[in-house]
Amino acid sequence: MNGLLGDIGRVFFVGFNEFNETVMETVREFKPGGILMMPGVLDDYVSTVEFFHFLEREGEYLISSDHEGGQMETIPYIPPSLGNLAFGFVDPSITYRYANMAGNIMRALGFNTVFAPVLDVLAEASAPVIGFRSFGSDPKVVSEHGIAAVKGYQDAKVLSCVKHFPGHGRARVDSHHDKVIIDVPKREFWNTDMMPFIKAIEEGVEMVMVAHLVVEDIDDLPASISRKFLKEILREELGFEGLIISDAVDMRALSAHYSVEEIIKRFFEASGDMILVTSVDDLKKYYTTLEKMIRSGAISKDHVDRAVDNVERAIEKYYTREGIGFVAEVARKALKFRVSSRLPKKVHVILPKGENLSPADTTVKYYKKLGEVFSKIFEVEGITEYEIRKGPQIDGIDSFVFDVVVDAFRSEEALRAHLSLREKAKGVFYIIARDPYDENFFKDYDYVVTHSLNPISLYETLTIFKEVAS
Amino acid sequence: MNGLLGDIGRVFFVGFNEFNETVMETVREFKPGGILMMPGVLDDYVSTVEFFHFLEREGEYLISSDHEGGQMETIPYIPPSLGNLAFGFVDPSITYRYANMAGNIMRALGFNTVFAPVLDVLAEASAPVIGFRSFGSDPKVVSEHGIAAVKGYQDAKVLSCVKHFPGHGRARVDSHHDKVIIDVPKREFWNTDMMPFIKAIEEGVEMVMVAHLVVEDIDDLPASISRKFLKEILREELGFEGLIISDAVDMRALSAHYSVEEIIKRFFEASGDMILVTSVDDLKKYYTTLEKMIRSGAISKDHVDRAVDNVERAIEKYYTREGIGFVAEVARKALKFRVSSRLPKKVHVILPKGENLSPADTTVKYYKKLGEVFSKIFEVEGITEYEIRKGPQIDGIDSFVFDVVVDAFRSEEALRAHLSLREKAKGVFYIIARDPYDENFFKDYDYVVTHSLNPISLYETLTIFKEVAS
Repeated sequence: MNGLLGDIGRVFFVGFNEFNETVMETVREFKPGGILMMPGVLDDYVSTVEFFHFLEREGEYLISSDHEGGQMETIPYIPPSLGNLAFGFVDPSITYRYANMAGNIMRALGFNTVFAPVLDVLAEASAPVIGFRSFGSDPKVVSEHGIAAVKGYQDAKVLSCVKHFPGHGRARVDSHHDKVIIDVPKREFWNTDMMPFIKAIEEGVEMVMVAHLVVEDIDDLPASISRKFLKEILREELGFEGLIISDAVDMRALSAHYSVEEIIKRFFEASGDMILVTSVDDLKKYYTTLEKMIRSGAISKDHVDRAVDNVERAIEKYYTREGIGFVAEVARKALKFRVSSRLPKKVHVILPKGENLSPADTTVKYYKKLGEVFSKIFEVEGITEYEIRKGPQIDGIDSFVFDVVVDAFRSEEALRAHLSLREKAKGVFYIIARDPYDENFFKDYDYVVTHSLNPISLYETLTIFKEVAS
Repeated sequence: MNGLLGDIGRVFFVGFNEFNETVMETVREFKPGGILMMPGVLDDYVSTVEFFHFLEREGEYLISSDHEGGQMETIPYIPPSLGNLAFGFVDPSITYRYANMAGNIMRALGFNTVFAPVLDVLAEASAPVIGFRSFGSDPKVVSEHGIAAVKGYQDAKVLSCVKHFPGHGRARVDSHHDKVIIDVPKREFWNTDMMPFIKAIEEGVEMVMVAHLVVEDIDDLPASISRKFLKEILREELGFEGLIISDAVDMRALSAHYSVEEIIKRFFEASGDMILVTSVDDLKKYYTTLEKMIRSGAISKDHVDRAVDNVERAIEKYYTREGIGFVAEVARKALKFRVSSRLPKKVHVILPKGENLSPADTTVKYYKKLGEVFSKIFEVEGITEYEIRKGPQIDGIDSFVFDVVVDAFRSEEALRAHLSLREKAKGVFYIIARDPYDENFFKDYDYVVTHSLNPISLYETLTIFKEVAS
């Protein structure tokens, strides 16, 4: 039976705020259709690269970020935008240009999807949550710039997901926290707030995120689970055949008022395709509930199969195995190892200070980040810094030591200090991180030559060390 | 007479470590052929964007960085490389891929030149300055990866400048500080250290940076001013017709041993094209000396004309007016101004703290950077932070106040606090930086609506304020 339900994970778009063993197990177990990398991942280069590297080996996914530019910037390698509101003042070709640049950088990193642009029309009532995420208060301006942004992303081969259908601009509260009710007449709402979405669909947008807001004159249900909005308006009236994704279902505007069963049943029966969850717990809860409902007949599998097919079509169109994950692969191939140690319980880390660097050297910023990488994989008891010309100066230490060796062979004093660690600690692993000629002096001991000071190389080193030493 | 010499500035490639009035005046006065943006510019987004914006309006230039990847990373929008040494362990197609990605990002920002890749062959003696900037100790590996990197950049329409000809790998000292002498026989040097440069020239590299090192068996002069190396080897024997640029002439390996006159005369007579200077003072010194030497006949203008022609050809091939400078233009067009103030001497800045932000908001990082932008243009006496819901709480203040207003109209208390500043300070300029609806409450006073929280918008605001108020 499990085989039959084996692909239902594809209807989930899952947000991760870190990258670790749990994330890997979760992705392997549930095979979600979409991976949303959140700021906790994207702020950390090692996590970003290793996550892409993992995904490249694991299968095919939509891989997205919330990078809108302006109020919401999550990818540090995209030059900051002014935000949509400022772009609303110039020609839409400029908006296209910015989105296309951003899209090309996203694609180079490995993203194939972006939860942008925001097509909400700014209104005086707009909660600070919309603010300058909107292209402005004129639906025509929002439409033109929104379409330009969608095309900019699409031309960079990034699937652009417009949001927050049917239009969040009049919301007085933040739907992360409260129920949102819009009380303008249907015709007015249709001609203003919904207009940019209608135009974008006419122009070929392929993904729409649906908000948890209630437009009283159209339906009493939040749009995200409304048959009226999804089936009758989006699919039938507007002829939209692309992906319909819910906004995050843990937002209180939805989760405080509807059960998981009711959300699932209404969403898929209304022709929704993907549910956005932003925690592993929510994924498990929704996946398990969906599975039970299919088995019990509470929801017809046909609805879910249709959604899965729609997701697979988008993945087939946009997925590429060409992101930044190859950097981890290069780091791994450049490692030269000799390990006989047992896996240590407590570790002490010895790192170079960044003194005596040449003007042609910006690596001091790396030294400062290396400590963090050790903490990703080991319980770090302490860190000692040393001057490159003197080597590490410690008396004795009741732990296993990782010694990051830089340019030891250029100074006898430093070399002696590094080598003497073997008598002072419970065990030593030398990480020769800069000049490969240092290797000659450490051949009798456990060591690695990384041929790089990049934290990725250190992460790969520690991962392999852990596998081999355990 | 000045007209005749009007273009001699084109033979200089000038490094700037900041962007300010002096830089603008210097570029306008000397019209150098190349602009090298150094870390002080590139670490600051406002400086980067405003520098490109300035250059776009000013003329055409080669615009470069020292971004090699690895040990020398200067552009924060390129995902960190592992350094060349690690790439030496994988297929050159991977090196191509990385360089091409980096090149595309460089191009999107506005760079058309890069001082990379390093083609020096690593040797045991290599000073830490080369380290993992080298692709390795095998000349064949260095050649293959070097050519791959050059093509990766060129395919992204970035002029790739290989360095440091004729090969810096055997240097025992850093030429930033000391004279560098290589004492291996010519044949050995030719078949190892020079090999990657020879291969790269065969494969169509278009720019070569020449180091200040002395290869005793070939010439007693540093290669950078050696007729033997530039004219006889590079131009005649290897048939190189591209741009020859010196390494920075303030490096002590050169500047401590030769006069400016001698460097100029030897370099251009040996068919060098561009001299790299990394300070405005050095540019003035070299420019003035060159000018005098041409007037006095100490050097034939023909040599300089030939170099200028070569530079102009490269600019014509690689220059594009398509960098990130447009962001400043958008920021400017999105400003809505009302100014009647006089130019203040001392200013006090009032900034929002980043409290109460929505999950869909990453702007808190901007708030923290706004203070710096004021300091670029005014003498800032003090900064006061306020809570958004309360507004600024200050008693009285003996300065002109810039008040960055965020979401004031949502709280009566905050609005009252902002408005009361007019009675408490020597003058107030309101910078409405988030919700444009705040404007309604400030119409009787001096204000701007920026429609963005990006520091660029603030920089453009202050620039215009200064022009209008003075």
